[in-house]
Amino acid sequence: MVNERLLRDMEFIVELDKMKTILRQTSLISQDRHEDDAQHSWHIAVMAMILDKYADEKIDTCKVIKMLLIHDLVELYAGDTFCYDKDANKDKEERELAAADKIFGMLSQDKAREMRALWDEFEEMETPEALFAASMDRLQPMLNNYHNQGGTWKKYDVPQADIYERISPVKKSSTSLWEFVEHMLEDAYDKGLINRR
Amino acid sequence: MVNERLLRDMEFIVELDKMKTILRQTSLISQDRHEDDAQHSWHIAVMAMILDKYADEKIDTCKVIKMLLIHDLVELYAGDTFCYDKDANKDKEERELAAADKIFGMLSQDKAREMRALWDEFEEMETPEALFAASMDRLQPMLNNYHNQGGTWKKYDVPQADIYERISPVKKSSTSLWEFVEHMLEDAYDKGLINRR
Repeated sequence: MVNERLLRDMEFIVELDKMKTILRQTSLISQDRHEDDAQHSWHIAVMAMILDKYADEKIDTCKVIKMLLIHDLVELYAGDTFCYDKDANKDKEERELAAADKIFGMLSQDKAREMRALWDEFEEMETPEALFAASMDRLQPMLNNYHNQGGTWKKYDVPQADIYERISPVKKSSTSLWEFVEHMLEDAYDKGLINRR
Repeated sequence: MVNERLLRDMEFIVELDKMKTILRQTSLISQDRHEDDAQHSWHIAVMAMILDKYADEKIDTCKVIKMLLIHDLVELYAGDTFCYDKDANKDKEERELAAADKIFGMLSQDKAREMRALWDEFEEMETPEALFAASMDRLQPMLNNYHNQGGTWKKYDVPQADIYERISPVKKSSTSLWEFVEHMLEDAYDKGLINRR
């Protein structure tokens, strides 16, 4: 007989498939299609593998990767909240906390605890790992916007100050990456992809 | 000035976006849509996080996750080869080796070496980590087929022997997971989702 705990874990794994249908605001580069949570999570996890050497402090890359792989699982029940939508962000924390209880509660206890701890650490954004993870999470959509003639920056006319605020975790994690970001955003402004307001 | 090495890494990261457009044969569960390489890679990386405790030998989960995140990057240039297509699999190795040289060659040397070593280890399928990674890679499409009324098993009338051959790495990595697989495949047969040939 297959053990009960494994069957629960498998139910969770089947549930994960839905992450491939939760659409984000960001579009794929040069494609008329929004990216989904699974694609986004994969992209930023690989980014962490490649960019970890640019972190100013020594970081546990493995922990960063794990955080990034699961950071959006709450969207299975809370949906994607567009980062520049101020109204929708008002109750985001509350909605996502309830979703976290539900989704991690599906797992056997040891794994539930491990995943929840990773998610909490990511959300608090205080440790070097959480800051680096947040940097990946925020940099990737900006790369896509930059390569998509402004993407959501243009579509929603996002003020430059909001973009800088959103990407600010990079400044706290990596001098080299921050130089890159400043260079990219200045260039985006010069090309008319963002408005300086 | 942004350093040259970082700019190369960023070009690679932008190139990764194309993984979101490389379609596999497997469909999303209960969706009339094929999954892509990015979605698949994310799914199996999270599976490794959850299922690592069922490995018979002690494994380095972090290495397994990294292998899974990059195992399909060669498909950026070699395309997806359907596992049950015997003709297409004849020159798969050659095509993928050339693609590996190209894709990992885009990275700065230290990361190119690290990624290539992970990919080579995965392909050789000999270490406990590579076997466990292969188990995740092969189990996930079977879960999707099982929950999709047979999926590619039915569509291509895949013989049961080929399915067992494909999933055999699980037998070498985990007694518990193998019990689950046998149970699932027997049930799939009973439900008429696969043919016993």
